[in-house]
Amino acid sequence: MGRVVVDVMPKPEILDPQGKAIAGALPRLGFKNFINVRQGKRFELEVDGDVTEAVIAEVRDAAIKLLSNPVIEDVVSVRNATVEEATNV
Amino acid sequence: MGRVVVDVMPKPEILDPQGKAIAGALPRLGFKNFINVRQGKRFELEVDGDVTEAVIAEVRDAAIKLLSNPVIEDVVSVRNATVEEATNV
Repeated sequence: MGRVVVDVMPKPEILDPQGKAIAGALPRLGFKNFINVRQGKRFELEVDGDVTEAVIAEVRDAAIKLLSNPVIEDVVSVRNATVEEATNV
Repeated sequence: MGRVVVDVMPKPEILDPQGKAIAGALPRLGFKNFINVRQGKRFELEVDGDVTEAVIAEVRDAAIKLLSNPVIEDVVSVRNATVEEATNV
């Protein structure tokens, strides 16, 4: 049973009020090193079976049709996460 | 100027209605291979300077204090994304 991760971010030219709110809050909490924040979405899709190239292609299709709004968002990454993670926290 | 990516996901034991809605919509759109979907958040923080270990530690702190709600969410990844991405779409 595999897992595919999809990352969706607002397009660079689109205003991101959530990101702006976070960027404003960071210095008030003492975090001074950050000049900009953008907030997007991360999806984890559990696959019935192995993550093949065909499955990745299907997820890429679903990411554009369902998981993102192509007018305001970019699908920045579609990747096999079956082994990834747990290593980099 | 570096960039740090933070991934936040709902805890496994927490119901995720957005993910459930997506999991329900996928087969209606012809995507049959998926048994579960969870939706989380992805943040990109632009750093004023290089991404050092100290900056990563600061982001990890900010991720727990501001970017996630520890009652219902896990910070699953905090990583330097200065070079990453653009490679895996």
